[in-house]
Amino acid sequence: MTSLSPTGLQTDLYQLTMAQGYWALGRTEEESVFHLGFRKHPFKAGFSLACGLQQAVELIEDFGYSEPQLTYLARLTGNDGERLFDPGFLEWLGLQRPCVDLDAMPEGTVCFAHEPLLRVRGPLGQAQLLETALLTIVNFQTLIATKAARIVTAAAGGTVLEFGLRRAQGLDGGLSASRAAYIGGCAATSNVAAGMRYDIPIKGTHAHSWVMSFAEETEAFAGYAKVMPNNCVFLVDTYDTLRGVDRAIDEAMQLRARGHEMVGIRLDSGDLAALSKAAREKLDAAGFPEAAVVASSDLDEYKITALKQAGARIDVWGVGTRLATAYDQPALGGVYKLSALRPSADQPWRRMVKLSDTPIKTSIPGILQVRRLSRDGTPLLDVVYDEEFGPPAAGASASSIDPRSDAAVSLPAGDNITSEDLLVPVLRAGKRATELPSTAQIRARAQRQLASLPPSLRLLKDHTSYPVALEPQVAALKRELIATGQAAGGEQGS
Amino acid sequence: MTSLSPTGLQTDLYQLTMAQGYWALGRTEEESVFHLGFRKHPFKAGFSLACGLQQAVELIEDFGYSEPQLTYLARLTGNDGERLFDPGFLEWLGLQRPCVDLDAMPEGTVCFAHEPLLRVRGPLGQAQLLETALLTIVNFQTLIATKAARIVTAAAGGTVLEFGLRRAQGLDGGLSASRAAYIGGCAATSNVAAGMRYDIPIKGTHAHSWVMSFAEETEAFAGYAKVMPNNCVFLVDTYDTLRGVDRAIDEAMQLRARGHEMVGIRLDSGDLAALSKAAREKLDAAGFPEAAVVASSDLDEYKITALKQAGARIDVWGVGTRLATAYDQPALGGVYKLSALRPSADQPWRRMVKLSDTPIKTSIPGILQVRRLSRDGTPLLDVVYDEEFGPPAAGASASSIDPRSDAAVSLPAGDNITSEDLLVPVLRAGKRATELPSTAQIRARAQRQLASLPPSLRLLKDHTSYPVALEPQVAALKRELIATGQAAGGEQGS
Repeated sequence: MTSLSPTGLQTDLYQLTMAQGYWALGRTEEESVFHLGFRKHPFKAGFSLACGLQQAVELIEDFGYSEPQLTYLARLTGNDGERLFDPGFLEWLGLQRPCVDLDAMPEGTVCFAHEPLLRVRGPLGQAQLLETALLTIVNFQTLIATKAARIVTAAAGGTVLEFGLRRAQGLDGGLSASRAAYIGGCAATSNVAAGMRYDIPIKGTHAHSWVMSFAEETEAFAGYAKVMPNNCVFLVDTYDTLRGVDRAIDEAMQLRARGHEMVGIRLDSGDLAALSKAAREKLDAAGFPEAAVVASSDLDEYKITALKQAGARIDVWGVGTRLATAYDQPALGGVYKLSALRPSADQPWRRMVKLSDTPIKTSIPGILQVRRLSRDGTPLLDVVYDEEFGPPAAGASASSIDPRSDAAVSLPAGDNITSEDLLVPVLRAGKRATELPSTAQIRARAQRQLASLPPSLRLLKDHTSYPVALEPQVAALKRELIATGQAAGGEQGS
Repeated sequence: MTSLSPTGLQTDLYQLTMAQGYWALGRTEEESVFHLGFRKHPFKAGFSLACGLQQAVELIEDFGYSEPQLTYLARLTGNDGERLFDPGFLEWLGLQRPCVDLDAMPEGTVCFAHEPLLRVRGPLGQAQLLETALLTIVNFQTLIATKAARIVTAAAGGTVLEFGLRRAQGLDGGLSASRAAYIGGCAATSNVAAGMRYDIPIKGTHAHSWVMSFAEETEAFAGYAKVMPNNCVFLVDTYDTLRGVDRAIDEAMQLRARGHEMVGIRLDSGDLAALSKAAREKLDAAGFPEAAVVASSDLDEYKITALKQAGARIDVWGVGTRLATAYDQPALGGVYKLSALRPSADQPWRRMVKLSDTPIKTSIPGILQVRRLSRDGTPLLDVVYDEEFGPPAAGASASSIDPRSDAAVSLPAGDNITSEDLLVPVLRAGKRATELPSTAQIRARAQRQLASLPPSLRLLKDHTSYPVALEPQVAALKRELIATGQAAGGEQGS
């Protein structure tokens, strides 16, 4: 098996052919600024939750090319059968060590469309080579953390467990899905490898096959209770669900006589609303008001909402496929755009946009930062500004980020207004500029951030929309670059 | 970073708690048979393409538990704060070495709902622990290989390239997606790591950022052509697409004067049908009839079909997100079901089914094999039979696999009928029983298998359906087990 470390080959081929182009033209060391962001929230949500930075940092720290990897590249050929890569370029690649600056929103930060989540600043060659893998990591984890936050919102205080590994997109897809789901608010995962690697609580008891391997369901429950008296969630639907609940209760009584409490019962099929109500009644009547009713079966935020509306008495929601793959929208369309370039540090920056048919999709030029203005701890407005032009003045007028709108956005001012710059230094010249938080700390940040949002923004449907504005000088430059580009028939690199 | 090797922790926690249950009851070494299959084709397709066996085998061969992994498990606690796992069980886990028998359909085999793709036979403890990871691997790769086969069918002789890494579900999700997409019929991937690891052709030239990094588009094309004259696919839509085509042609003429041919141009936005026709005309008129028109932009089998119907002149289709994540159905619902068990080799088998609300979803009991009957090389019918009961006799009458149907299926007979058993021995007692083919060999098998199908079965919509039957003794046993289970109020382990 080929090693994936160092990480330089985890990229699209065109990043390497472009890097060779820059190399041949003596441009690899030009100073560049790229921003990673997305243009539309997934799931028609009103917010997203930034996630994946830890793995992005690890990827950059391990950036480089081994001898076997260079040998592989040396074998590749073009349409004339001649080598694709010049030995001089491969030598340059072999000398690559992580050297970019990375500024990013801490994981667990609530973020919005059109904002940079990550800013990479450094030599054009290396910054370009990092594009693909940074997108893969941040797109996927941000997607899943956002999905988890929605599901946890729907559970409205109930516990959500993530059970998705068997349907995940590869074992590593499952691993990072479990991490992001926990950060988004899940209480635990079934994925043992993720539990160990990321220090996430793990949960699990038994499957249908356990019950089937015994001649009688009663025997299966008794056998499990004997061996794991402190971990009993009996799966009751292998045969007849409510009869299964009765048998679970019988076993729970015997457990109690031996000094243990049953954790609960699990429903995995049928009419979960009706069955949970019936199970709850049986459990309460038998003296087990603390026993949890756990439910699973293709759940997501919509089904949980519908079940709650139908009066389901479910305490713990086991969510699998629809969370771990973000089933209704399995990819976030994040992009990584070049926005400023200069031949060397003593030259002026050339800022640029990538034009699009729709002005709102045109990228934002500059060396960007996001300032969040809050009133009494509630976020009111984000402003994207260029660090070299400076932040917007308090009380100033900014422009809506949507260039179709002429509306000026007036920045709030006052004693109870606080401001925070969301992109923080993470790497400087490839080395850590800050200590990264633990998974539990990230999850706690996400919980605080979500709790600070106006509740109307967190609604699954018909949510309000959060304003993001462009600082006036950035807005003016963007308009000018678009206009020049259009007037010149599209010459919009400059 | 925690190592994921050996692979024993790549599982759901409940597999470990069940294994401890079997261990405590002295049952881990009972001989068990599990089958992995699915009950519904993805994408409403008429067939699927089995994929992922290589990685499944590698996972089993690396099965086991390291000391740090066992230490992690020893720290886990139950609802009373006491340890979850018994030291004796962890000792048993630490001694685990791969020992199961694996029979499987070779990768690239066309397969159908309700058929076993993999059969695991071996000690109940180990076979249970392998469930989750085998499902993750085979579910995902089978899903993507099937999606790729559909997209390649839609391209109807055109070339399909897979470009999905940046939107894939994690870097390893991207890696296995690239492998499965190639096996399903893609000609190459953009994913360099997948190219190296699986020996898959890789393709790529340049992105919009290359063009944007120059003051003029002309300069960008000239710069690229100078450095990589043997790999020129110019991306023409950064500014004005048809003007971009003219500039690509200018550069192609200069390339030709220097003895090189432009590979083609790429369209990434706009009306691809109209633009491709216009680009084709310009290229032909300028003396470049061999230059390819490459298109990308959220493509899948439906968009490709629509573009072809609109008269698009596209030679090469770059397909990304919608292939690498199987966007319209991002998970295959494969299952892994216990179907036979005996305490030891000198005892009789107990065959079992997992009941379901719908009889068709009830699992098939026994030690199963799939026999494919073909006429003159065209598959006619698959029959699932129990190896201990023996294969169906030629010309005999079998039962439809759908128990709602009473229709007997008459097995074809005659000189031009050939039969093939699809599950072949892969591992015996954890060791390879056969050499596994290369990725290119697997792809070639898939191509042959797909070409042998009746064309009506490969239609994207309104396809015919392929008959799968149960050998009569298996069908009778399944009916009996269902009836007994229902009559007994559900006692259906036996």
